[in-house]
Amino acid sequence: MGTTQLESVPEPKYWHLKTVLSEALDSEFSVGEILPNERDLAARFGVARATLRQALEQLELEGRLQRRRGVGTTVAPPRMGVAVGTELHVWPGAPGDAWQPVDCVTEVPAAAVAAALETGADEPVHTVRRSRVTHGQRVAAELLHIPAASVPDLSGIDAPAGVARARAVLRELQRLELEGRDSAVELGSARADDAKELDRLPGAPVLVVTTRYLAAGRTAALSVATYRADTCRLTFGDSGNVEIHEDPHRHAS
Amino acid sequence: MGTTQLESVPEPKYWHLKTVLSEALDSEFSVGEILPNERDLAARFGVARATLRQALEQLELEGRLQRRRGVGTTVAPPRMGVAVGTELHVWPGAPGDAWQPVDCVTEVPAAAVAAALETGADEPVHTVRRSRVTHGQRVAAELLHIPAASVPDLSGIDAPAGVARARAVLRELQRLELEGRDSAVELGSARADDAKELDRLPGAPVLVVTTRYLAAGRTAALSVATYRADTCRLTFGDSGNVEIHEDPHRHAS
Repeated sequence: MGTTQLESVPEPKYWHLKTVLSEALDSEFSVGEILPNERDLAARFGVARATLRQALEQLELEGRLQRRRGVGTTVAPPRMGVAVGTELHVWPGAPGDAWQPVDCVTEVPAAAVAAALETGADEPVHTVRRSRVTHGQRVAAELLHIPAASVPDLSGIDAPAGVARARAVLRELQRLELEGRDSAVELGSARADDAKELDRLPGAPVLVVTTRYLAAGRTAALSVATYRADTCRLTFGDSGNVEIHEDPHRHAS
Repeated sequence: MGTTQLESVPEPKYWHLKTVLSEALDSEFSVGEILPNERDLAARFGVARATLRQALEQLELEGRLQRRRGVGTTVAPPRMGVAVGTELHVWPGAPGDAWQPVDCVTEVPAAAVAAALETGADEPVHTVRRSRVTHGQRVAAELLHIPAASVPDLSGIDAPAGVARARAVLRELQRLELEGRDSAVELGSARADDAKELDRLPGAPVLVVTTRYLAAGRTAALSVATYRADTCRLTFGDSGNVEIHEDPHRHAS
């Protein structure tokens, strides 16, 4: 018992290298600086390329490094805090919403979306695509699924497609009384279209926030938002951000 | 505009294979079943081993597959919803808390933790290690940092170490009036000791939830909780879980 339990687990070689590299990033490199190539780094630290690559992958997962095609590996800035507050009990598209509508399609959705919305097998659903920009950077992409039954008075005449259609759907949604919302966060991988929009490679790790908006006892809208996991820290709560930019894992390691 | 924007991005080969594999998992395999080895799978789908491996990695990120040392690759059960509600304005260790204390150490913490707590350079901090079990599975490990100043009346005599010490620290914490809390979720990689506790390999992707508890205008406690990203979906809000077990990304892909 006592202190030994925190210290007694042996760490693999790449893990030790990760710690050493992390300290080198702090002391020798500045944000945005390009790292030497893998061959030079492996030679400098006296490790195999495979070990080096594992350590670099860890640092990328933790948001310390960014790898971009055609640029190389650079030192990442601290992750941005992006508010995903659950206290904001308003509909998507209400004033102050951080998301910008991009597009809208209306069709029968995939089975999983229909099941989550509890819509019938042939019921059409409006899917609004939206984009979120923070500090000048596109940080998230969203598909907002709204069953046709949630916006029965929507007219197809004045805004048949595109961003105007998206705005019309969101405007109609405001007419409902919002009864509550709940959210879930999980790890996912970037779909090709999201990846392109977020300037990432397809399959890059992302944080997927699924939010269900409830009205009249049913799911009136379902948002599936994909956040860049490399640059974003999702913040919840009512009193500002948790300010712990350095790796909080270093303690006891 | 219109529908084309959602459909026009070409997808890489492993991405297509991922979709095909995902359908095969649905139709041919049951939860817990072990997949054929990589050589056989690559032959069956007519792809290179490297392409197969990329597709398997994606499915692991998305929680469809689990890879365990000595077992192989198995079909994962749906992710568990684990509540991380921000509406629960109570101290850690209060009745109903889902976490079990394991251990406690008192020492001057790492610089990043001291900075987040705004403690002085030499101020000791109690670090309580806790564990969270859901549906019989250990899903998360936590380090809860509590500055000595938050629990000034703590006596070292009756519980000098271990789980009894952890309980004594938490009990003292309850004396303060909780003014608020905020949380942040980000992607991380499992530290060796957490990995062992969570039955994962070191460096496995994890969801790190950092929560700051405020009292008397300062940070009275800081929790850094590490959740298994493969099996957990973190839920927020007041009206039950978002029930979308199937990959919500399939829509429009």
